[in-house]
Amino acid sequence: MTFIDKLSAAWTRNNSLLCVGLDPDLARFPAHLQGQPDGIVQFCKAIIDATADLACAFKPQIAYFAALGAEAQLEEICRYLREQYPHIPLVLDAKRGDIGATAHQYAREAFDRYGADAVTVSPYMGFDSVEPYLEWPDRGVIVLCRTSNAGGSDLQFLDVGGRPLYQHVAQLVAEKWNRNGQLALVVGATFPEEIAQVRKLVGDMPLLIPGVGAQGGDVEATVKAGRTADRTGMMINSSRAILYAAPQGGEDFAAAARRVAMDTRDAINAARG
Amino acid sequence: MTFIDKLSAAWTRNNSLLCVGLDPDLARFPAHLQGQPDGIVQFCKAIIDATADLACAFKPQIAYFAALGAEAQLEEICRYLREQYPHIPLVLDAKRGDIGATAHQYAREAFDRYGADAVTVSPYMGFDSVEPYLEWPDRGVIVLCRTSNAGGSDLQFLDVGGRPLYQHVAQLVAEKWNRNGQLALVVGATFPEEIAQVRKLVGDMPLLIPGVGAQGGDVEATVKAGRTADRTGMMINSSRAILYAAPQGGEDFAAAARRVAMDTRDAINAARG
Repeated sequence: MTFIDKLSAAWTRNNSLLCVGLDPDLARFPAHLQGQPDGIVQFCKAIIDATADLACAFKPQIAYFAALGAEAQLEEICRYLREQYPHIPLVLDAKRGDIGATAHQYAREAFDRYGADAVTVSPYMGFDSVEPYLEWPDRGVIVLCRTSNAGGSDLQFLDVGGRPLYQHVAQLVAEKWNRNGQLALVVGATFPEEIAQVRKLVGDMPLLIPGVGAQGGDVEATVKAGRTADRTGMMINSSRAILYAAPQGGEDFAAAARRVAMDTRDAINAARG
Repeated sequence: MTFIDKLSAAWTRNNSLLCVGLDPDLARFPAHLQGQPDGIVQFCKAIIDATADLACAFKPQIAYFAALGAEAQLEEICRYLREQYPHIPLVLDAKRGDIGATAHQYAREAFDRYGADAVTVSPYMGFDSVEPYLEWPDRGVIVLCRTSNAGGSDLQFLDVGGRPLYQHVAQLVAEKWNRNGQLALVVGATFPEEIAQVRKLVGDMPLLIPGVGAQGGDVEATVKAGRTADRTGMMINSSRAILYAAPQGGEDFAAAARRVAMDTRDAINAARG
């Protein structure tokens, strides 16, 4: 089963477009998990168990693990996800980008080591920096297009032939790079009107949309801008608003995460119409 | 001492602009190191010892370690470099790029965990994806500008206001992002005339120049295009041509690496004039 098929099945099965981001920040962990050697695994497994019926994807952000030297814990979390929830796509958020020989190593990291169904990559180095990932035909590659941070405009909004660079990237990916239907795009929720522009350019290509929750993106405007004719087409990501929903130190962090995840899923579904 | 000062001192001390890239590919290792649990450490330490008096920097490429789950070996190699050769800058080639909170985690990975003097990053997400690294005032950040792969032209050569995107990035980095003199640029050796364009735009900013050696860039044209008035200004990287200089299986890989490193350094110096 390809990444796109798996994602599509998860949208239907859980009636959800919500992607739960796993950004484990020890400073915000509940007190009883602080200082435990496998605290990150315990925290993430609890979040996963509490939200797996509400999510269309899980997205660990590798930087949070790499900063702590916690790759072994990320491996364990990914293994747990694949074994316990094989129907939910696992997206490794890594935003890699390098020449072909090196990209091949990054693909091995994402797909073989962590078993991710998809990985995020940067388009700056061009198609041959994306191509090596396509050798894993059942996996997906999610290319940065329009990002949710303020500085995203520095390059992505530059005028290229009468339109902003991010639109050029969207069309390039949709029309030239997406040879086997393995590609998707990252488009931030902080710019709903730009999501609509991208949607027009890329047909039904899935969009990974960060920026709701802690980053303040508007759920209703986001969904209306990004939905496809069948009212799917998006992984709308929330990380911190879900992970740290409980007042710090609370042991009910998983229950609080579930509540926020459910509210977010429902708000998304209300806007899908 | 800042990254730029340390680099400048290494240029002078070793009379070298050669950066030795550490891309450990097990399939190309000498037979006696294959299958050893610390084979990567042994290989890289031997390369480092054989070339440390010929290099102005060492540049481990993290993808090669990440694909193998060999972060602990990368940590050991970085520790060895800092302890044995504290006067040679350690550049972590990671090409990271993410929103501020995540970029801060990547900066911790590069600077605190691995103790790198500098790290490579992508400009696609803009200044606020670079800014967190600047909180380490003695470290450097090397921003992708013009890359040495064929696909680099896909985005970097797009016309932005009458000139290619990579020139816009060069000027943006030099004039706006480089607030504390911590920044440098990646410009591939495969396009010497473009190195010259970048040099005109960025003054004496250091350039990391991959693409000589296995990628085929011309050393003389590269040096003439990129040198500053004092005939420095570059880290000219060679990885595979040095690391795998010996016929495969040979135990003299370090001696062969030294020979190629010396030849490359000397060719660079001949072109510096």
